Amino acid sequence: MTYDDDNIFAKILRGEIPATRVYEDEDVLAFMDIMPRAPGHMLVIPKAAARNLLDAPPEALAACVAVAQKLARAAKAALGADGITLQQFSEAAGGQEVFHLHFHVIPRFAGVALGRPGVMGDMEEIAANAEKIRAALESGAGA
Amino acid sequence: MTYDDDNIFAKILRGEIPATRVYEDEDVLAFMDIMPRAPGHMLVIPKAAARNLLDAPPEALAACVAVAQKLARAAKAALGADGITLQQFSEAAGGQEVFHLHFHVIPRFAGVALGRPGVMGDMEEIAANAEKIRAALESGAGA
Repeated sequence: MTYDDDNIFAKILRGEIPATRVYEDEDVLAFMDIMPRAPGHMLVIPKAAARNLLDAPPEALAACVAVAQKLARAAKAALGADGITLQQFSEAAGGQEVFHLHFHVIPRFAGVALGRPGVMGDMEEIAANAEKIRAALESGAGA
Repeated sequence: MTYDDDNIFAKILRGEIPATRVYEDEDVLAFMDIMPRAPGHMLVIPKAAARNLLDAPPEALAACVAVAQKLARAAKAALGADGITLQQFSEAAGGQEVFHLHFHVIPRFAGVALGRPGVMGDMEEIAANAEKIRAALESGAGA
């Protein structure tokens, strides 16, 4: 299993295609999932080339999970989420569709099941949730 | 949200109740899920007191994910898994049932959906899978 830099997240990292970004540092980028399974569904990816959990440098995993924590706290504050579901899919059998390592950070609300996968979200609603999460991060809710 | 050390994983850490252990180091314990959603389903927990993603020390998260990677590689080698699904549930709304931070490491097999949650596994089969995973770790398959 090798890394193919033609994948869509590599293109987002290179700025070749757009994404609604919520967080970025030297090692990690986070942006909104355009097929959200709940309001505020985000993806956290390392800037380093890594296919998934099986080949990733441990430092990239640690950096992604630390950012997932910040985003989880920010989403709780920004959207009033009651919980968080974190998912990482490795290889097609594991549920992976884009072959650049990514963690799903999914805000959850009491009594609301996860939405179906693969359904395009409302881009205005996604942008509004991103704005709220960014504002929460800026006000220190991720720390 | 506070940490209650009466939870079942805290009892496993204290040795008050048994678990089928597959890996242990200074910071992390991994053992078999007794309600496996696929053969070889494991749980990775920090020894530090942490409720979930929202309150965990970043070092504990990093240590757990590094061990999840070792176990993922070992399960692939030991059980012939085709992929891995990693899950972490925070708070009841996020899917959490035991309130000590844990990551699910679920070996996946091409064409096989996740089993239903909450169904007790066959303890002999669980023990046999654990034995295979431990042997793979010992032979270096996790590295």
